[in-house]
Amino acid sequence: MELIKNLQWRYAVKKYTGESVSENKIDQIIEAVNLSASSCGIQPYRLMVITNPEIRQKLAEGSFNTQIHASSHLLVFAAFNNITSQYIADYVTMMEKQRNLENGTLNVLKDTLTPYFSARTPEQNAIWSSKQAYIGLGTALIAAAELKVDATPMEGFNPEAFNAILGLSEKNLHAAVILSLGYRDAANDSLASMPKVRLPITEFSTIIK
Amino acid sequence: MELIKNLQWRYAVKKYTGESVSENKIDQIIEAVNLSASSCGIQPYRLMVITNPEIRQKLAEGSFNTQIHASSHLLVFAAFNNITSQYIADYVTMMEKQRNLENGTLNVLKDTLTPYFSARTPEQNAIWSSKQAYIGLGTALIAAAELKVDATPMEGFNPEAFNAILGLSEKNLHAAVILSLGYRDAANDSLASMPKVRLPITEFSTIIK
Repeated sequence: MELIKNLQWRYAVKKYTGESVSENKIDQIIEAVNLSASSCGIQPYRLMVITNPEIRQKLAEGSFNTQIHASSHLLVFAAFNNITSQYIADYVTMMEKQRNLENGTLNVLKDTLTPYFSARTPEQNAIWSSKQAYIGLGTALIAAAELKVDATPMEGFNPEAFNAILGLSEKNLHAAVILSLGYRDAANDSLASMPKVRLPITEFSTIIK
Repeated sequence: MELIKNLQWRYAVKKYTGESVSENKIDQIIEAVNLSASSCGIQPYRLMVITNPEIRQKLAEGSFNTQIHASSHLLVFAAFNNITSQYIADYVTMMEKQRNLENGTLNVLKDTLTPYFSARTPEQNAIWSSKQAYIGLGTALIAAAELKVDATPMEGFNPEAFNAILGLSEKNLHAAVILSLGYRDAANDSLASMPKVRLPITEFSTIIK
């Protein structure tokens, strides 16, 4: 299977060459993330794609992950801080339009989702949104690998600084996880030649027949 | 890109035919999930693959998601309840073996990870583990789509019942998210022919140059 080959090819790159990833490839990676599944289908996160060197230098301050600035692109998966009734209403209206349904056809969906999310605390909704962003992260890693673009998924960053510098808080967003893109500097990245470490399949999975 | 075509092909199936997915395909999906990235690379979740009809009937009780039992296979992504020092030590030892390194070579890694996880509450570690499982979920959806196997990711299940019935709690695990696999019953699943709903790319993503 292509996917397994691509997953075996990728690793979390520590050192990139200076080569840029083409806009066309970045567009394909973004499109793949946008096509990712999300619970209730409401896509409760957004993707920031950053090349600006000054902003990236600021974002990298204090982090051990130099890939935040020393890579071609930085993707920030920004998850919702809360799921508002207005967001659900707007999303359901968009669903009706994209499916050529009359306005109001999906009221039952709206009336199911609204109390479901409003019964949870904003913190619970923020954690839930972050989890959906991780599905997108999984997709982005696979999209990059299919295009032979290297990547580094990272949790080692300063979320408060990211939220402030990127103005996420006022957009009801928070930086959940980040991903750098570029091309591996195989000669200077000791991890490039290391065998991938994974659990034996029988330890990772259990079959219950 | 193959991935984009596969993502466009998939949807969250509501109704399956009775056809079984072959063991070979299930094995490839499991292998792909095992190859997924995880933070710090320590794979803090396990995969339960269930076909047993009695167990699935019990798991489905009280859930609106009939796909829990009415599908070919059910995958349960079971995330760690906590990250113990023993687990880190064992995983690092496995890393050394798989990379043909002398015992103790990766002590620095072990000594970095151990206080990192022990400084967090078990609840924080459980949420963190769940997020890693969602990366695996993203991979499983793509693996299934590449094999033209249909799937339904689900959060609508009773986690306490899953933990009890599958004996997860005593293994330091909890059911984080589940996925059914099978083949769509296109004639009887009204969602099969619906256009996929997604945000316009410019609303989903922001480019910062």
